[in-house]
Amino acid sequence: MADSSSLDALVEALRRLPGVGAKSASRMAFHLLQHDRAGTQMLARALEQAANNVRHCERCNTFTEAAICSVCQDARRDGTKICVVETPADQAALERTGAFRGYYFVLMGKLSPLDGIGPKDIGLAKLFERVLDGIVSEVILATNFTAEGEATAHVIGEALKQRGLTVTRLARGVPAGSELEYVDLGTIAHALVDRR
Amino acid sequence: MADSSSLDALVEALRRLPGVGAKSASRMAFHLLQHDRAGTQMLARALEQAANNVRHCERCNTFTEAAICSVCQDARRDGTKICVVETPADQAALERTGAFRGYYFVLMGKLSPLDGIGPKDIGLAKLFERVLDGIVSEVILATNFTAEGEATAHVIGEALKQRGLTVTRLARGVPAGSELEYVDLGTIAHALVDRR
Repeated sequence: MADSSSLDALVEALRRLPGVGAKSASRMAFHLLQHDRAGTQMLARALEQAANNVRHCERCNTFTEAAICSVCQDARRDGTKICVVETPADQAALERTGAFRGYYFVLMGKLSPLDGIGPKDIGLAKLFERVLDGIVSEVILATNFTAEGEATAHVIGEALKQRGLTVTRLARGVPAGSELEYVDLGTIAHALVDRR
Repeated sequence: MADSSSLDALVEALRRLPGVGAKSASRMAFHLLQHDRAGTQMLARALEQAANNVRHCERCNTFTEAAICSVCQDARRDGTKICVVETPADQAALERTGAFRGYYFVLMGKLSPLDGIGPKDIGLAKLFERVLDGIVSEVILATNFTAEGEATAHVIGEALKQRGLTVTRLARGVPAGSELEYVDLGTIAHALVDRR
């Protein structure tokens, strides 16, 4: 951008963020250095801290700073049910509903053969070990309803059924508050098949 | 997001980047910690370095690590011409054309009364001092052709004309390679008025 190797290095580093190209990276660097030096230092420290402190929960695989995360430490939850999600954000969405009081397992990804992401890359071995603790009886698959999320649910489901566990999947159907006219055909077809 | 205050602090800090909201910040933090720890450390160091090392050129106000930037240090340039631009990126665009061999002044912003950005916030005093060095005879206003860029050019132009300098503006007209049918009316009207 200008006459500074530190600035070029910063633009280069910002491009490693997902969804940030050369133009956005330049704009971000300009904004930080021109208008928000305090924010620049703050972001530097936050990155450093997170890179050093954040690790994976030994039980559920989510991000945590302790060996076991607070959800897994909560003894009042129902140990017979485990809900499998793709990311901590998905877990947070489920927690906000207040409708589930079991434990979670966070895959930290999804099967994606096209991107070279196979079972080993998303901690499936750790999941199988976790659910075969003798207490878990039902595994609820709450991966996303995308092609990759469905494939991930299918692979996990097949493997766990062989091991004698009850495997369920979040219901598919028409979203709350929606008008049928504007719902896509695939969703309506699923809602018809899964009617109750 | 999950069970980690470092992670929450990181998401909060990423939101200070322009154009990054809560969802993007979460996604960025997840990506960095799950897939790119090396990038996380690299970005932290780059931010730290840039915040400590990058300052403004004493002559042209652009980002630099020395007291005077390399462009201002280049004695082969034409000292009678100064080109005024909004940002280092604009300066880089002009440099790439190879059509200008004078010096620059980088405002690092534009007048924007609605955002509370007045003449003092964009280094106009420094600009006036620079162009009244007795050598500069022509100031080329190359601020953007937006409402704010035009207003900035107008304010600077009026002030410098009173001080006896020749003030010019980049020509407005039809962009190279475009078909008239698809060019907006305002641009065609300007091109007609400024015909040569």
